[in-house]
Amino acid sequence: MATVSPTPLLKDELDIVIPTIRNLDFLEMWRPFFQPYHLIIVQDGDPTKTIKVPEGFDYELYNRNDINRILGPKASCISFKDSACRCFGYMVSKKKYIYTIDDDCFVAKDPSGKDINALEQHIQNLLSPSTPFFFNTLYDPYRSGADFVRGYPFSLREGVPTAVSHGLWLNIPDYDAPTQLVKPLERNTRYVDAIMTIPKGTLFPMCGMNLAFNRELIGPAMYFGLMGDGQPIGRYDDMWAGWCTKVICDHLGWGVKTGLPYIWHSKASNPFVNLKKEYKGIYWQEELIPFFQSVALPKDCTTVQKCYIEISKQVKAKLGKVDDYFNKLADAMVTWIEAWDELNPSGDISAKIPNGASK
Amino acid sequence: MATVSPTPLLKDELDIVIPTIRNLDFLEMWRPFFQPYHLIIVQDGDPTKTIKVPEGFDYELYNRNDINRILGPKASCISFKDSACRCFGYMVSKKKYIYTIDDDCFVAKDPSGKDINALEQHIQNLLSPSTPFFFNTLYDPYRSGADFVRGYPFSLREGVPTAVSHGLWLNIPDYDAPTQLVKPLERNTRYVDAIMTIPKGTLFPMCGMNLAFNRELIGPAMYFGLMGDGQPIGRYDDMWAGWCTKVICDHLGWGVKTGLPYIWHSKASNPFVNLKKEYKGIYWQEELIPFFQSVALPKDCTTVQKCYIEISKQVKAKLGKVDDYFNKLADAMVTWIEAWDELNPSGDISAKIPNGASK
Repeated sequence: MATVSPTPLLKDELDIVIPTIRNLDFLEMWRPFFQPYHLIIVQDGDPTKTIKVPEGFDYELYNRNDINRILGPKASCISFKDSACRCFGYMVSKKKYIYTIDDDCFVAKDPSGKDINALEQHIQNLLSPSTPFFFNTLYDPYRSGADFVRGYPFSLREGVPTAVSHGLWLNIPDYDAPTQLVKPLERNTRYVDAIMTIPKGTLFPMCGMNLAFNRELIGPAMYFGLMGDGQPIGRYDDMWAGWCTKVICDHLGWGVKTGLPYIWHSKASNPFVNLKKEYKGIYWQEELIPFFQSVALPKDCTTVQKCYIEISKQVKAKLGKVDDYFNKLADAMVTWIEAWDELNPSGDISAKIPNGASK
Repeated sequence: MATVSPTPLLKDELDIVIPTIRNLDFLEMWRPFFQPYHLIIVQDGDPTKTIKVPEGFDYELYNRNDINRILGPKASCISFKDSACRCFGYMVSKKKYIYTIDDDCFVAKDPSGKDINALEQHIQNLLSPSTPFFFNTLYDPYRSGADFVRGYPFSLREGVPTAVSHGLWLNIPDYDAPTQLVKPLERNTRYVDAIMTIPKGTLFPMCGMNLAFNRELIGPAMYFGLMGDGQPIGRYDDMWAGWCTKVICDHLGWGVKTGLPYIWHSKASNPFVNLKKEYKGIYWQEELIPFFQSVALPKDCTTVQKCYIEISKQVKAKLGKVDDYFNKLADAMVTWIEAWDELNPSGDISAKIPNGASK
């Protein structure tokens, strides 16, 4: 895991999406693992600022002006002044797989002291099946040294395609503002050597810090919502994407994995700022979870797009009364799908227009 | 975890149940951890054989003659020549908690080389809540150094009572006969430092080798079925108990945990013998899993006993056509509950008759 493969896996089939407002010095540490891959950098905030990217990386960069130019009025669905803007990178990618990482995430070490090639582990997770229909007590049965245990139905051992690989964080854990405030010194030092499928019907809090997915399968569901500038809420972008994604994966029979790989999350964001962003989310979420737990998608929702539009209707019908924000969000979900289909016509991902400042 | 507490946790509230056909020399290794507790030994096979128990352990021992004498005609529900007989020990216990372990399971070491006090970890698992309604990506949120992550609904953070703690095995993994045959040399060397709640609605393969539970909560569901002598099937005793238990825990709002602690499973059982015991189970299980996934318990099933009797009815109605064995099993499930209630009148666990050869 901590060695670099001579021929990097999926070199021409994966884009790394990075939302940022600063120079990308953090890439230096990732150079041995990321340099063979193409980067899509989504510059948030002031578009006149120049983001420096270390020498030798192959990248395209989009700032707000690029987003507005490419999407026109549909750019309204892309958040501004919030890392939720990263989902624009998913939309303009031409690749089958996406890995997205925050610019305050560094290379972690495994218990033997070796550098963890997070990307390689994500790729392994995505390329091996998932097992959402029955729990395997020895975790991922496809890993070397593991298998299905006694009592696991043989008919389920082929598994299903994996749509999402959710990686974890050493050092600063992904806590909400109240927990940050209560436990300012807590660090995650526990390396749990496991990957597992989150069972069908179970929701989870998906963090966008260290996340990979099969864009061809689930891309259109990876919308990070309306956050940041002009919105009443922040820090629920990845959560929203995770709940929508999980419900759709459950419906279409795909898997979501969580566990390895770890990255080193270097610094805690300000809990006071976070509390301001989160506080509406903290009480709205008490309505959102029962909502997503009860979403039923009809059988004729056979594509991610159809599923997503159906969810947007149910959001409007059932969450619009929680707050008018959800009416706006439901509309933005529709806009997102329209924009996605415009940039990705008839599923032909090679036919798309290249844009932005390519290097 | 690897040190012995000065005052052992739950010393007077937990029984250790051990099914065996041989001298219990394996207890020597467990002496530092088990000696403060009371043991219930269920002797399988020839009742005239003498089982030697190392000096200094406090135990009661039941052989087949004792079981027949205590249960009379109801003894038919207790398996013979199969470790499924262990559930008799659950029934005659007077304690709130049970830990059961196989006599080929030794003390494992954690990655730092310390002996793992499996019992202490099980007790910690049982005494801390479970979180079956939403997945926490940092695993057990009640462990030191962990918590609920961002996006975890606050209303769910109190958790629910934990009914079952399912521990794992280093060295010989718990594989079925086909997997044993295909991978005769596979050993489990991966120490996964995690405990997690198996989500509501998800079934798992419960292994009886290293298992603890809250007998007061879930005891009557821990019936290990009809296996061994005179039965067409073996090695599905713990699976059956696990599926019934999980469905009932889901219905009554209790949690099932899996993960730590590990024991060292010393020797693989004979895969050819296992295949003979398992082969009907391997195809029946393809019907059993959908059956248990679809069991619906009505609201008036407010006790474990009521739930269990309801499941027995559904077993007869839906699985009886798979094989007549399930009609017999359904009847035995009813007999088990009758015997349980006879030995545990009106839930008063202190009022029971002591029996067997107490030391």
